[in-house]
Amino acid sequence: MQLALSAAELAAIVQPLATRGATDMTVRGLASLATAQAGDLTFLGNPKYKAEVAATAASVVLLPRDFAGEPSAGQLFLLVENPSVALARVCARLEQALWPRPAPGVHASAVVAPGARVAASATVGPLCVVEDGAEVGEGAHLQAQVFLGRNARVGTGCWLMPGVAVTAECVLHERVRLHAGVVVGSDGFGYEFAAGRHEKVPQVGNVEIFPDVEIGANTTVDRARFSRTVIGEGTKIDNLVQIAHNVIIGKHCLLCAQVGISGSTTLADYVVLGGQAGVVGHVTLGQGAQVGGGAAVTRDLAPGAVVNGSPALPLQLERRVAVLRERLPDLFRRVDAMETELARLKKASAA
Amino acid sequence: MQLALSAAELAAIVQPLATRGATDMTVRGLASLATAQAGDLTFLGNPKYKAEVAATAASVVLLPRDFAGEPSAGQLFLLVENPSVALARVCARLEQALWPRPAPGVHASAVVAPGARVAASATVGPLCVVEDGAEVGEGAHLQAQVFLGRNARVGTGCWLMPGVAVTAECVLHERVRLHAGVVVGSDGFGYEFAAGRHEKVPQVGNVEIFPDVEIGANTTVDRARFSRTVIGEGTKIDNLVQIAHNVIIGKHCLLCAQVGISGSTTLADYVVLGGQAGVVGHVTLGQGAQVGGGAAVTRDLAPGAVVNGSPALPLQLERRVAVLRERLPDLFRRVDAMETELARLKKASAA
Amino acid sequence: MQLALSAAELAAIVQPLATRGATDMTVRGLASLATAQAGDLTFLGNPKYKAEVAATAASVVLLPRDFAGEPSAGQLFLLVENPSVALARVCARLEQALWPRPAPGVHASAVVAPGARVAASATVGPLCVVEDGAEVGEGAHLQAQVFLGRNARVGTGCWLMPGVAVTAECVLHERVRLHAGVVVGSDGFGYEFAAGRHEKVPQVGNVEIFPDVEIGANTTVDRARFSRTVIGEGTKIDNLVQIAHNVIIGKHCLLCAQVGISGSTTLADYVVLGGQAGVVGHVTLGQGAQVGGGAAVTRDLAPGAVVNGSPALPLQLERRVAVLRERLPDLFRRVDAMETELARLKKASAA
Repeated sequence: MQLALSAAELAAIVQPLATRGATDMTVRGLASLATAQAGDLTFLGNPKYKAEVAATAASVVLLPRDFAGEPSAGQLFLLVENPSVALARVCARLEQALWPRPAPGVHASAVVAPGARVAASATVGPLCVVEDGAEVGEGAHLQAQVFLGRNARVGTGCWLMPGVAVTAECVLHERVRLHAGVVVGSDGFGYEFAAGRHEKVPQVGNVEIFPDVEIGANTTVDRARFSRTVIGEGTKIDNLVQIAHNVIIGKHCLLCAQVGISGSTTLADYVVLGGQAGVVGHVTLGQGAQVGGGAAVTRDLAPGAVVNGSPALPLQLERRVAVLRERLPDLFRRVDAMETELARLKKASAA
Repeated sequence: MQLALSAAELAAIVQPLATRGATDMTVRGLASLATAQAGDLTFLGNPKYKAEVAATAASVVLLPRDFAGEPSAGQLFLLVENPSVALARVCARLEQALWPRPAPGVHASAVVAPGARVAASATVGPLCVVEDGAEVGEGAHLQAQVFLGRNARVGTGCWLMPGVAVTAECVLHERVRLHAGVVVGSDGFGYEFAAGRHEKVPQVGNVEIFPDVEIGANTTVDRARFSRTVIGEGTKIDNLVQIAHNVIIGKHCLLCAQVGISGSTTLADYVVLGGQAGVVGHVTLGQGAQVGGGAAVTRDLAPGAVVNGSPALPLQLERRVAVLRERLPDLFRRVDAMETELARLKKASAA
Repeated sequence: MQLALSAAELAAIVQPLATRGATDMTVRGLASLATAQAGDLTFLGNPKYKAEVAATAASVVLLPRDFAGEPSAGQLFLLVENPSVALARVCARLEQALWPRPAPGVHASAVVAPGARVAASATVGPLCVVEDGAEVGEGAHLQAQVFLGRNARVGTGCWLMPGVAVTAECVLHERVRLHAGVVVGSDGFGYEFAAGRHEKVPQVGNVEIFPDVEIGANTTVDRARFSRTVIGEGTKIDNLVQIAHNVIIGKHCLLCAQVGISGSTTLADYVVLGGQAGVVGHVTLGQGAQVGGGAAVTRDLAPGAVVNGSPALPLQLERRVAVLRERLPDLFRRVDAMETELARLKKASAA
């Protein structure tokens, strides 16, 4: 990040309760206490790192109001109510620099069908394709090289990053963010086997994505066989995730990278799936269920269930099993020894 | 889907043996018996849902010819030989609406090299790139933002969706469908370690994909080190699958989402791989072998083998092992108890 | 590959120490000894295939200088110091044909912001987007439909293939190769849970990729929350890999396809990860650590550690455990039998 903030500008952003020391440096970077160099801003977000403050080379440090130490020469302490919140304010400012609000309008190089509707405040960036009947809502941003298929709808304030494809008839509600390379509305994987060949089952449903969903780079979401594949409000999905046809995902779920959800499975609200976890088709994961990274869910999960492993087991059992697995060589030796001993005893008792 | 079919239009499509009741509603959606609302079409595809017919709110219901019940007011029953087949006919009609046959020709925004050959009936959509020497066959459709590299060949009736890249020298036979974001012909992952560095082994083969193959969104297929990476006729591959260099896949295989096949491995015909399964390099999976989701295949599989688990074992053994794994804590307790008892007995017998 | 080399041209490339026999065929393909046909070039790279030389149908065979056999009619033997090296020379020539050096310049269809800097010897291909402040170094090649975000930097001799997205502020050093569909600089997956919703934590760092890194198709690399996500010099990454925010990868690592690395994890130099392996967040893998395919690394690894399994264990232990897992049904039977026997003995001794 090409950050460049003077001490005065930083203070204007975080509005400190008090300051200690001073710096002439322009702040050009953010770093942790241990890795910060002159010209960096850092923060004490967790009390356990308190001892690192004295040694940090950062030019500006965000600290809790009751922090007792003194800055070194050329170093500025900004004392605030909550250093993490103060840092988030600086980051939000940085975000605006990273992603400046684009000017509304359709780039001359974009190919927009005459029958498409683009709101006046929306931005359709360079080399996008918007097909007939598609709608781009107020303030929505198709960044570059985005594809929007026939009759697809992009709601108010959505942001579709480079190379995103939202195919025919799919619907995005407000403020949906799709990172680069996301595909929404690819065909579900459905075939019927007849006469030695897999005959395609038409996939004529769509995908509906509710407000405030964010989806990571190169993730794929298949259209339903019919009706809808659904991603509920506020759900966040990481990179390279696969959502199969007719999956219904509730509100405020978290799906980490490389997760795969098979067809017609339902996730209730607040479900969390760790990276690379997989879920078979046609099952239901209850509200707040949590699945560990790499776990394989093969049946329904009750609300609040916490599972791990492959196939997934309740967390406590899985941890115990994982420990015992390492002790299998020892167990086999013990059983061998017992068999020998038992044979000896048996012989002795028979004698 | 913006479906809009009158009762008469539906009847014209499914050609019922008989009808019962009537509806004025325009059919605008498809749904299951339990979730259908007024204005929806539904069907009884499986006898076990027969009891749901009486309560469905659908305006039109596709039913087997011997179905006994009566429609509710404003509801139309269409009695047919096979409700699933009748539904498929409606879906096929819907598919045409979703994906209307594009007009032939090269879009003005596409960049087609002078030395490329595009058949008269082919469609090269907006913002595609077709490099020198590439060929696009009769009726083939490059939808939008597709990349076709030097001397690549796309056969009759192929359909390449937005953002697909087929790189230099790769060959697609007839009717291959590539969903959005598919990459065909990326370099194989090959290096030789020398003087502390990984030196690239040139990857100068290609990929050849036989007729009627379908490949899901964002899947990647690497070109061969030399000669070919092959995907056999009629094979269907889901999203986010990785096919490494020099892999040979037979005919009519099914590869579910996020599967990974390592280099130089061969799959015979009719092999099925469940989601997230992985196969090591340089092995052969015999005809009709079936691999469970998430399984890790580490050696050759005989024709017809059915395996699961990681590393993969024969299905029956793997199921047994999975059950016993849950009982490991109990087994360790039993062995502890036996050791104690055995020591006691030994002591007693020594006394 | 549309290879077409006469025997004389081949000899000029490999500069044989001696030749035996002759051929009139134009060499049009490369193949292994066993699969080669007339018109193919083949080689004896490994002495164990020596017996296959007599039967090969190849028109030209690269052989070690001390090879004793005679060619068949119309077949040419080229005797060289090292047949693998000789083959690599031919492949390098083929590579030039596959990927001819593009002419420098910006294609008329590319959209390059006025404030971007493109070096005179660089190539910006058709339908690329280069945003304001971005830099494209000498000899760099943006092949087609590439996206380069604000202030992103692409070093000398980099090669970005079709559909690659390098987002704002990210930095590629010299000779980085990104295969089709790679995304560099997607947001890290960071949220804070407040009032029942996941609130986004701004991701304002970047990604820095050091010289001679190669990254496979559709792989994703997230930008740091702040500071940098780093990929060290000479590291090679396969297709569909996920690198989360703030990950630090050392020099000359190998990450096979579909690997996932969670946030803030560090890999030292020369680490190797097999396909589909996963690593949790906030751990460190020591220099030269090796992780088997599909393994799940849940804690730090010492330098040189070799692990496998899920969760990962030292290789020898994991192999032993994998074998014993197959013997669990037998172990349970043995324990059942011992319990019966022990009860009998106890009863007898009590009698």
